[in-house]
Order: sequence, then structure tokens, then C-alpha cells
Amino acid sequence: MSTTLAELAQRLGATLVGEGSCEVVGVRPLDQAEPEHLSFLHNPRYVAQAISSRAGAILVEDPDLLPGRTLLVTPQPYLAMARALEILHPRPRPEPGVHPSAVVAADVELGEGVAIGPHVSIGVGTRVGPRTVIGAGCVIGARVEVGSDTELHPRVVVEDSCRIGCRCVLQPGVVIGGDGFGFATVDGVHHKVPQVGIVVVEDDVELGANVCVDRATLGVTRIGRGAKVDNLVQIAHNVEVGEGSILVAQVGIAGSTRLGRFVMMGGQAGAAGHLTLGDGVLVDAKAAVYKSFAAGTRVGGIPAREHREWLRDSANLRRLESLRQRLKSLENEVETIRRGREGVRGEGEG
Amino acid sequence: MSTTLAELAQRLGATLVGEGSCEVVGVRPLDQAEPEHLSFLHNPRYVAQAISSRAGAILVEDPDLLPGRTLLVTPQPYLAMARALEILHPRPRPEPGVHPSAVVAADVELGEGVAIGPHVSIGVGTRVGPRTVIGAGCVIGARVEVGSDTELHPRVVVEDSCRIGCRCVLQPGVVIGGDGFGFATVDGVHHKVPQVGIVVVEDDVELGANVCVDRATLGVTRIGRGAKVDNLVQIAHNVEVGEGSILVAQVGIAGSTRLGRFVMMGGQAGAAGHLTLGDGVLVDAKAAVYKSFAAGTRVGGIPAREHREWLRDSANLRRLESLRQRLKSLENEVETIRRGREGVRGEGEG
Amino acid sequence: MSTTLAELAQRLGATLVGEGSCEVVGVRPLDQAEPEHLSFLHNPRYVAQAISSRAGAILVEDPDLLPGRTLLVTPQPYLAMARALEILHPRPRPEPGVHPSAVVAADVELGEGVAIGPHVSIGVGTRVGPRTVIGAGCVIGARVEVGSDTELHPRVVVEDSCRIGCRCVLQPGVVIGGDGFGFATVDGVHHKVPQVGIVVVEDDVELGANVCVDRATLGVTRIGRGAKVDNLVQIAHNVEVGEGSILVAQVGIAGSTRLGRFVMMGGQAGAAGHLTLGDGVLVDAKAAVYKSFAAGTRVGGIPAREHREWLRDSANLRRLESLRQRLKSLENEVETIRRGREGVRGEGEG
Repeated sequence: MSTTLAELAQRLGATLVGEGSCEVVGVRPLDQAEPEHLSFLHNPRYVAQAISSRAGAILVEDPDLLPGRTLLVTPQPYLAMARALEILHPRPRPEPGVHPSAVVAADVELGEGVAIGPHVSIGVGTRVGPRTVIGAGCVIGARVEVGSDTELHPRVVVEDSCRIGCRCVLQPGVVIGGDGFGFATVDGVHHKVPQVGIVVVEDDVELGANVCVDRATLGVTRIGRGAKVDNLVQIAHNVEVGEGSILVAQVGIAGSTRLGRFVMMGGQAGAAGHLTLGDGVLVDAKAAVYKSFAAGTRVGGIPAREHREWLRDSANLRRLESLRQRLKSLENEVETIRRGREGVRGEGEG
Repeated sequence: MSTTLAELAQRLGATLVGEGSCEVVGVRPLDQAEPEHLSFLHNPRYVAQAISSRAGAILVEDPDLLPGRTLLVTPQPYLAMARALEILHPRPRPEPGVHPSAVVAADVELGEGVAIGPHVSIGVGTRVGPRTVIGAGCVIGARVEVGSDTELHPRVVVEDSCRIGCRCVLQPGVVIGGDGFGFATVDGVHHKVPQVGIVVVEDDVELGANVCVDRATLGVTRIGRGAKVDNLVQIAHNVEVGEGSILVAQVGIAGSTRLGRFVMMGGQAGAAGHLTLGDGVLVDAKAAVYKSFAAGTRVGGIPAREHREWLRDSANLRRLESLRQRLKSLENEVETIRRGREGVRGEGEG
Repeated sequence: MSTTLAELAQRLGATLVGEGSCEVVGVRPLDQAEPEHLSFLHNPRYVAQAISSRAGAILVEDPDLLPGRTLLVTPQPYLAMARALEILHPRPRPEPGVHPSAVVAADVELGEGVAIGPHVSIGVGTRVGPRTVIGAGCVIGARVEVGSDTELHPRVVVEDSCRIGCRCVLQPGVVIGGDGFGFATVDGVHHKVPQVGIVVVEDDVELGANVCVDRATLGVTRIGRGAKVDNLVQIAHNVEVGEGSILVAQVGIAGSTRLGRFVMMGGQAGAAGHLTLGDGVLVDAKAAVYKSFAAGTRVGGIPAREHREWLRDSANLRRLESLRQRLKSLENEVETIRRGREGVRGEGEG
């Protein structure tokens, strides 16, 4: 795919500074770009790199940073870069149609332009919205609903009765609707509690490779609109992840915990069950959340506490060595004083 | 599915208090139940919610808590609720038979009532017990044994020679019998140590989505009878998980570690290799177990230590700030005393 | 498989001590071996066990440790054991050929002796090297390159344009080339940044079950030659894992982080993005790496610091209780001194 810089500027809604007739064939980082590439500057730290870059043109917010260069000026260079990638490196879309090796129940409703890959199976009563792509080896259960313009990468499982929204992306190996982990233990026997609820993945959600979202015991496990979930994340039964939340890789959220809107959890963080994290709560990587936190709190540590407190505790832990030494010299000094005082007493008494 | 309350009471072995002729169509939590639903009270915290619930009937241990309500009285309301879910929300069972797209070796022995889904493959010499269900896209190797009444959800892998018991449930994406992680490193080259052992999953085990259980180097990696394992858990080669143990999501257990009976490990906890955790050991979520612990111990923290010790250390860490301040004022006071003493000395000398 | 001890000695390049005519049918640990088995002693701790073992022969470095026993003497008993496993417990190799249920694009190039299992799909323009095995249910995208003598266990996904080297082993459920986790967030909307780079897995790499390696945003995510990666590990976009590195189960590495050669990360450890870990860095299990470390450093803890420092901090944390008590008695003593001094002063003033 290639385009002129002028045409690209127009499609990105950017202002062209310099000659617009040259061809652009792709996007590259500043240090790897050649004259036929577009690059981008969205962090002032990289101005020097931008100045010395061989890129044919650079996406930038402030043109004064790069005088004399061919520029595409835009208030959001990173977003424009994302759009330029779509234009210059389009991902080939599979042809619509159902691969002959797919096993699709007779009553399945497929929207216009749907593409179903090899070795897919789809159960009875399922509906798939227009232009949705279902990759090779996916297993879609019965009575599932998948919206329009959604992409299921290969080997995704969506079990019975779960619902996936529009414009979602499910990376390979995602499992939607496995049973929640619930047992009634009586006399040392763990009796399975049937998990009869469902999973609802709202519109514009992305779920990373091998992510697991369990079906609710009763009711719904919900991933809110626009949430983005990285690889190998575990979401237990009856969890609610709020709109626009971000869960980085290997996060785990235990049963019935509710995340508000735009919650952010760093990699390998975990949250216990039956908690509430308010809107915009920010959980540091690796943290272990054992209690609820109000909207806007930043928390970290094991167990998780307010970020400032955690930083203080960590700093104090590092200072313990000097604390011990100060205590030791104080003990010595007090011992000296005690002995001296006995001397003074002696003198006073003499 | 619907039934009268009287019939349900009889099937659950519960005592009916109130009118038994009304129809019940499902189970719902106290706050979402309508008159056609059964609900349950198994935690006294929710008595007020039970009193105001619109549920047609409530499973409860002590009828005096809910005077005037229609009740199903039973010593184990939570267990009865699990059974009511089975009765009122039965999971449809696939029809017995082998899907024509499945690839099943000629000598495979399938018990009566077995259901094999689309795109399954089963290797030579494998045996599958009566009424077992093998979901779409599962890959079963050669010489595997799967017991009766077991359910493999879609896309499970069981590699050659491994054994799965009766009444097991394997959620989607489980991998049984991948190679253990073993290398002989000589002069900077990691030579693979062939992993020629197997995995044995005993009866009544449940394994969560995308769980990995590696085959032993030599001998057996074993998941004991009745153990329950949540999603994304890692069980390394030659590990033994004792009967009735519970491993919550994202737990990892390194090679050759042995867990006794009814061990419980919280989410994201890990155990190093070649350890022994005695019967009933309870490992807190997120803990890192680096040494063996005797039966009945509760441990937590990184590195894991006895729970009481860990709580004390954590509390002390939080108290460090006040400790520092106390040390500071003591230093000041000692300084004052020292100066004063010099004054006293001076006076004494005068 | 069985062989005489003399023949086995020759194939392993070991020196036979004792009678070479007996048949050996397999390898067993010292405590489980019978006269028809070979065993091995590679850790002096187990000399007593070796002496009492019933093994027909023992691989050992120093024959003087086991006088009177039939031995295979070799400088690397553990490596020789690995080779003996290959000889005595060979894994049956599938017959070359393409299973009729596989869906292979017309222009795919398959090397001599390639074996493609049931329900595999392979996209256009892909090339697979000689003798490579692609297990049941694997999904290989378009324009992928897989080297020779590589084994893909069942249900591996390799997405478009990624490259896998020679003599690699990918365990079941591995996902290569899912999208990196990248979004441009503007006004509360997370816009997807297309991930147009690839993954390169170099020669002799092993990847464990359900491992995820994301494709780069631009450029390459790279797993260096001879690296070994355990189950459920997450490797984000643009990461570089150096030659011979070892990542134990459930490790997570965030975007653009570079690991040098022979880096070792213990189980459940994590590294933040945009860091550099020098050659031979050793990260303890469960650690959280938030900054770069120079070659040869051993680090541990959350946040990770030099190992010695972490041990000291942990020890200090355990000593806090005694520290508190020392501070308390010092406070009492100073109080006594203060009161006494007031007495002395009174006396001095009198």
C-alpha cells in the first residue's frame, strides 16, 4: 500500500508542512525510518532523534520543534499514527463466506459479509452480526450472540448463551463462558455448583490471547464497553469490569468484584472477591487488592494500600538498615550516659 | 424446566414450610428473585435481604429466621441450592455419537453413550468411558484413558498416554501432558531432557480454562481425587496435588512439589520445586512458598511464612513511620540529656 | 525399546564399568529402578541412594563413588541421561503426509517428510521446512515461515507473517503473533493501534503450553536462539529475549523490554516495559522488575533490587519486632535517666 503525503495528510486530517508529492509506503519508528516512510514524534524526549531521523515526513503536534522538516501537523500524533498504520498497513480481511469444513447448525443466522474460517463449529440458535470474522478453529456454542464488525481470531471458544458485542476483537485462545469456580463443600466433598449465568462482552472490547472470562453462577459476568484486556487475564464469575477499563497481562479478578469505569490494573495485579473499585482506580502492577477503594485512588503493594503509603512503607523498609544503626548508637550513648550518671551521682554523693 | 415446590422439596430432601403447589421456574439471588423463583439464605448476614426478598420460596437452615415465609428447610442450603440449579437449569447434554468431522483412530474404544463433537481427533489405542462428552476441537492423543461421565469442554488437549478419571470436568483450553520444563545445560546449551512420564487426573477432578498440567520426566504428575483447579493454573512435571485440594486461579506449582490432602492455595500464589505441603496447608493468595510446611499450617507473604508472623511483619512495616519518629525524638532527648549532663558535670566540677 | 548396556555405552560415549551384555529397557530414578533399568547419579547428595539402588547400571561422573557397581562413566551424567531417554523411550513420530482433514492453501510449500495433523489450517504463502511436525488443530496463518525439524504440538496458533526457526518445540496452546496491547487514548476512548510487526522465534527455542508472544507494533518481537520458555508466559510486543535465556512459568514481560543472553527469570516474575536486563541477569521468582539492571546482576523482591539488598531488607523486616522492643526499653531507660537527672540537678541545686 502506498500513497502521496498530500493524500495521507488529507485522510488523517493533518496539516502538511512541506512537499506533498512524495510517496509514503509505510510507518516506521524515528530511528528506522527511511525517506519513503512516515514517522511520528509524540514524546518531546525524542526531539533529537526526530531531528536526525531519515523519515520522509513526521507526524508532530508542534511544528516549531522540527524546523525545515516535512511534517504532518496534528493535535494527536499518536492517534494519527494509529490511523496511518490502518491506511498503509491494512490487515487483509478474509473473504466473506463459510468455509466448507466449518460445522454450522442449520438455524444459525449469519449477517451479511460474515467470514467463517476452517474447522469452526457453531451451535444451534446462534446469531452472528454483519461483517464479523470468525477465525479458524473457533468453537461457538448454542444461542450465542455475536455483534457486527467483530473479529474472533483463531481458536476462540464462546460457550452457550454468551453475548459478544460489536467491533470487539478477541485474540487467539480466548475462552468466554467456562464455568465459574464454585463448590459447596460438605464433609470434605466439593460439590459443583452449576454455573447457569452468562458472560456479556459489550461493544468495542478487546480481549488478549488465552484470556478467560467465566460465566456467572446466576446472572451475568460483564466486560463493559470499550474495556481493553491484555493476554492471560483471569476474570471470575459475576465480575463486572467497567467501561473503558484496562487490565494488563496476567491480571486476576476474583468472583463478584466490581470495577468502575476507567479502572486500570497493572500487569500481574490481583483483586480478591466481592470488592468494589471505584471509577478511575489505578492499581499498580503486581499489587494484591484485598479491600475496596474509592474512585480515583491509586493503590499498590501486597496487600494493596494507597500509593503514597506504599511508597512510604517501601522507602522505610529500605531505611531499616540505617534505623538499626541509629538505634545501636543511641543504645551505646545511653549506656555511656547511664555509667556517667552513676559517676556523677558518685561524685555528688562524695 | 419447572416444577412444583412440593416436588422440589422432595427431590432436595428438604422440609417444605408453606404452600407446595406453586410452580418454581428457576433459582435467583435474594435481591433478584420473583415469586416464581427459589432463592437461598446460607449466610446470616443476609437475613434482612431474605425478609424483603420477593422470592416464592427460600432454602434455609433455620426456619425461625424467616417467619411467615414459604421455605425449604435443609441442613445445607448452599448444597441444596446447587442441586436445585441442576434440576431447574439443566445443561443440555449433547446427543451420543461421533460427529462426522471427528477423526477417531480405528481401534479407539468408546463406551456407551459417548458424545464426540466436531473436529475432535483421537489417537490410536485410546479408550473413552461410558457417557463421557468430548467437546468440539479437542485433541486426544494415543493410548489415552478417559473415564466415564467425564466432560471435556471444547478445545482440550490430552497428550499421549495420559489418564483422566471418571466424573471429571475439564474446561476449555486445558492442556494435559505437555512436556515438563527440563533441560541439561552444558557449555551454554540447554539440551532437552525428554519427558517420558505421564499425567494422571483422578476421579471427580475439575480443571479450569487454559490450565496446564505437564507430564512427568519419569513417572507421574498426579492430580488427586476430588481436587478443584481454577483457570490458568500451572502444574509442573512430577507434582502431586493431594485429594480434595483447591488451587485458585493463576497458581503455579514448580516441579516435584507434593501437596497433601485438602491443601488450599489462593489466587496467584506460587510454590517452588521439591517441597512438601502437608494436609490442610492453607496458602494465602499471592504468596511465594519457598520451603515445606507441616500439615495444618496457614502461610502467607513473599517469602511465605506462618500467617501470624506475616501479619505481624506487615503490621510492623506499617508502624515503621511511627517507629522512626519515636527514634528521632529519643535521639533529641538523649542529646538534651547529654548536654545537660555536661552542664551538671560542669556544675559538679565548679 | 531395549538395548545392551555395551551398545548403550557406545551410543552415549560413556565408559562401561562391569558386564555389558545385560539388556536395558528404560531409565528410572535411583529409588524406582530395577535390574533392567539404567539410572543416574548427578548430585553427590544421592550417593547413598545410588549405593542401595537396584538399578542394573548407573550413569556417573566419578566411578570411585560407587565401587563394585555396573556403571556408565561420563563427564555429564545428566546430559547422558537425557540422551538415554531419547534412545530408550523414543517418542513415536507421526507419519509424514498431510491429513485429509487439514486445510492447506494451494501455494504452501511443505518440505520433505513434513507431517500435518488433522484439522490443521495453513494460509497462503506459508513455508514449512523438512521433517517438521504440525499437530492436530494448529492454525498457521498466511506468509508464515516454519523451519526444519520443528515440532508444533496440537492447537498452536501462528498468525500471519511470523517466523519460527528450526528444531523448535511449541507446546499445545501456544499463541504466536496475537496483537500487541497498544491503544491511543483520546477523550476516554482507547483507539486500537494496529500491530503490523511480526514475531521471530529463532532456532532451538522451546515455548511452553499456552504461552503468548505478541507481534510487534512495528518491527519484531524476538525470542533468541536456544531460549527456553515455560508454560503460561506472556511476552509483549517488541520484546527481545536474548539467546539461551530461560523464562520459568507465568513470567510476564512488558512491551519493548530487552533481555540479554542467558537471562534467567524465575516463576511468576514480571518486568515492566522499556527496560534492559544485561547478559546473565538472574531474576528471582515472583520479583517485579521496574528498572534496568547491568549484566550479571542477581535481583529479587517487589520492587526488584539487588539480591543481597533484598535479603537484607527481608531479614530486617523479620527483625522489626526485636527492634521495636529495643526501642521501647531504650525509651524507658531514657525516661529513668531523665527523672534521675532531675533528681541529680535537684541535689546539685540543693
